[in-house]
Amino acid sequence: MQRPPKRTGPLAQLKVLELGHYIAAPFCTRILGDLGAEVIKVEPPGGDPVRGWGAQVNGNPVWFSVHGRNKLSVVLDLKRDRDVVLKLAARADVLVENLRAGQLERLGLGPEVLHAVNARLVIARISGYGQDGPYRDKPAFGAIGEAMGGLRHLTGHPPGASALPPPRCGLSISDDLAGLYAAIGLLAAVWERDAAKAGTCRGRVVDVNLVDSVFSLMEGMLHCGADQHLSLRRRQVALHCRQFRPDFRAADDGDRRPELAGDPAYTTNADRCARREALDDAIAAWTRTLPAKDAQDRLEAADVPCSRLYDIADCAADAHFLARRSVQPVDDELIGRTLHPGPAIRLDGDRPEAAIGWPGPVTGAHQDYVLHALLGLPRSGQ
Amino acid sequence: MQRPPKRTGPLAQLKVLELGHYIAAPFCTRILGDLGAEVIKVEPPGGDPVRGWGAQVNGNPVWFSVHGRNKLSVVLDLKRDRDVVLKLAARADVLVENLRAGQLERLGLGPEVLHAVNARLVIARISGYGQDGPYRDKPAFGAIGEAMGGLRHLTGHPPGASALPPPRCGLSISDDLAGLYAAIGLLAAVWERDAAKAGTCRGRVVDVNLVDSVFSLMEGMLHCGADQHLSLRRRQVALHCRQFRPDFRAADDGDRRPELAGDPAYTTNADRCARREALDDAIAAWTRTLPAKDAQDRLEAADVPCSRLYDIADCAADAHFLARRSVQPVDDELIGRTLHPGPAIRLDGDRPEAAIGWPGPVTGAHQDYVLHALLGLPRSGQ
Repeated sequence: MQRPPKRTGPLAQLKVLELGHYIAAPFCTRILGDLGAEVIKVEPPGGDPVRGWGAQVNGNPVWFSVHGRNKLSVVLDLKRDRDVVLKLAARADVLVENLRAGQLERLGLGPEVLHAVNARLVIARISGYGQDGPYRDKPAFGAIGEAMGGLRHLTGHPPGASALPPPRCGLSISDDLAGLYAAIGLLAAVWERDAAKAGTCRGRVVDVNLVDSVFSLMEGMLHCGADQHLSLRRRQVALHCRQFRPDFRAADDGDRRPELAGDPAYTTNADRCARREALDDAIAAWTRTLPAKDAQDRLEAADVPCSRLYDIADCAADAHFLARRSVQPVDDELIGRTLHPGPAIRLDGDRPEAAIGWPGPVTGAHQDYVLHALLGLPRSGQ
Repeated sequence: MQRPPKRTGPLAQLKVLELGHYIAAPFCTRILGDLGAEVIKVEPPGGDPVRGWGAQVNGNPVWFSVHGRNKLSVVLDLKRDRDVVLKLAARADVLVENLRAGQLERLGLGPEVLHAVNARLVIARISGYGQDGPYRDKPAFGAIGEAMGGLRHLTGHPPGASALPPPRCGLSISDDLAGLYAAIGLLAAVWERDAAKAGTCRGRVVDVNLVDSVFSLMEGMLHCGADQHLSLRRRQVALHCRQFRPDFRAADDGDRRPELAGDPAYTTNADRCARREALDDAIAAWTRTLPAKDAQDRLEAADVPCSRLYDIADCAADAHFLARRSVQPVDDELIGRTLHPGPAIRLDGDRPEAAIGWPGPVTGAHQDYVLHALLGLPRSGQ
């Protein structure tokens, strides 16, 4: 029986049941697991299909080493093993799911059924479009949340700079955002249940979706309309794009433009935005004369926020990432020695190393522990 | 005295003190406010400088209508009015700040001082690089979190498609992500304090930063190295880029490629990834023959996830957004009738309209209420 090591962290007493697949729900529970929560991940007999994605080492997915870390994996058929799922729900604080909207109900595992066995269960549901509304039954993926939530329209080069359509953000950002919003919603609900309104003991249903999670970031854009923000956002991009090219030659300090600093035309943010083109040209004329490293050194000496565009190798080698344990070596028996990102959330008194209890396990690794040690089911009965 | 309307939601009993400016901390508290929390925003005499950003109506910022909603604004000088800040901290559950790392200590408002007046206070700190490590004293903005966290390297067109450097994501995504992580961290800490370990009553310090918040999303990339992921991510982009161009002509159904569906070369995700170029070309050859609307209709009829690239006007007019109150009209006395995004987190029993109590107030709008009604300070004493 694989009994997992004891976890620490603020959520060490929180019991989470994941009926999730792909990205959004498993990402939500990964963050909860980093904070110490017990996460039981229910997988279908073939395993979460996300295990088939991306690079593999000896048939083991490297992504899952991170995506599945700190989780207990148990294999169940949601139809045939419905009673076992209900037993797991009965002892859980939170259930996190990202089946298609309505699928939980079709499996006979809807909120009413779950609350009949555990009225305190907080149920966090992540879907493409939400649990109601005209699109609720449409299928969705991360790319759709990004496109419909309005983000992709804003990501790209300034008008006229390229004939290519706007690219995607380089990650499944809408899944990640929905996972984070679900974590916030369920933690708010367990706090309300356990602390703020201890008398009610009610397990709330939290409804989060990919499209709204992206759309939530649109700031004041609804007021302004599309055109104003497109040009604003894309012009910002232009400014940043031109700042750091890695291959320019150095020049002496004679290129400084002290007259701009004292120019009243550039005093406020609004002033500078109004003269963005001129400012951009002046900055680009300066950076064009310098290697990126030199430009960065001089800007930092002047306390100007700046950065090169890091790739993952830059992150892995960076002194600050290493000093703060933002990159951590992990011995993974499935894929060998590897590197994990540390926790994005640090709490005083908790070592950042403690956030990584174990890397993502093989499908069903904790079958025996979960069914027999935790639920007390007889071995032969399965 | 402007006494605010009573709020509902799971965090209605949570008292939040914001010493924030610009995006990350105020975004964190906006999400907490949407969930019902009391948020007291402390602003310097001139107001949060973010109020000067973007479009203005009669000198009032439209972004702040959303960014500042549900908040109580009080003007204090953190140096001169330190005693008042400590009184506010004494009655709060959570303090959220995004001053430069160490600034709170320099103001005589560090965690030790705050915990001396309120040992239960959870202190959520958001910075560019974290509260320790070699870069902790460097200044940062959202663009830097995106660049150093590894995201910007991945956002762009496939190698060879464009000579332009990768653009920024169209939003200050690292600020937004850090705000969400801070919300998760502080809710985990208040749950631990109030429910899981009620005996300790300890106010934890939560340390979140822009760079780690982006880096947290890098999945298995640390294992694979930069090149593999760059080409993978950017090729994904290529596929999606070519799917929907709005101006192609319609064709009949003779263009269907039923032979691909039965082709064993395309059975698994790994198969399809390996033949991405061929698949991409086949899809592009089909979509190129259709107006976007027709392509969408046919794909939806076949239950294929798809979307056009919405701009903000598309969002505002969409039937699903409207039906779910993801877009809500708001009467803002400062900027007039406007539209807000609804809450990304829905809880059963809470109307989505209730998430918007009031739009962002003018600087100091709740001075009298906060100082006199809440703190009981004498009127003449200020």
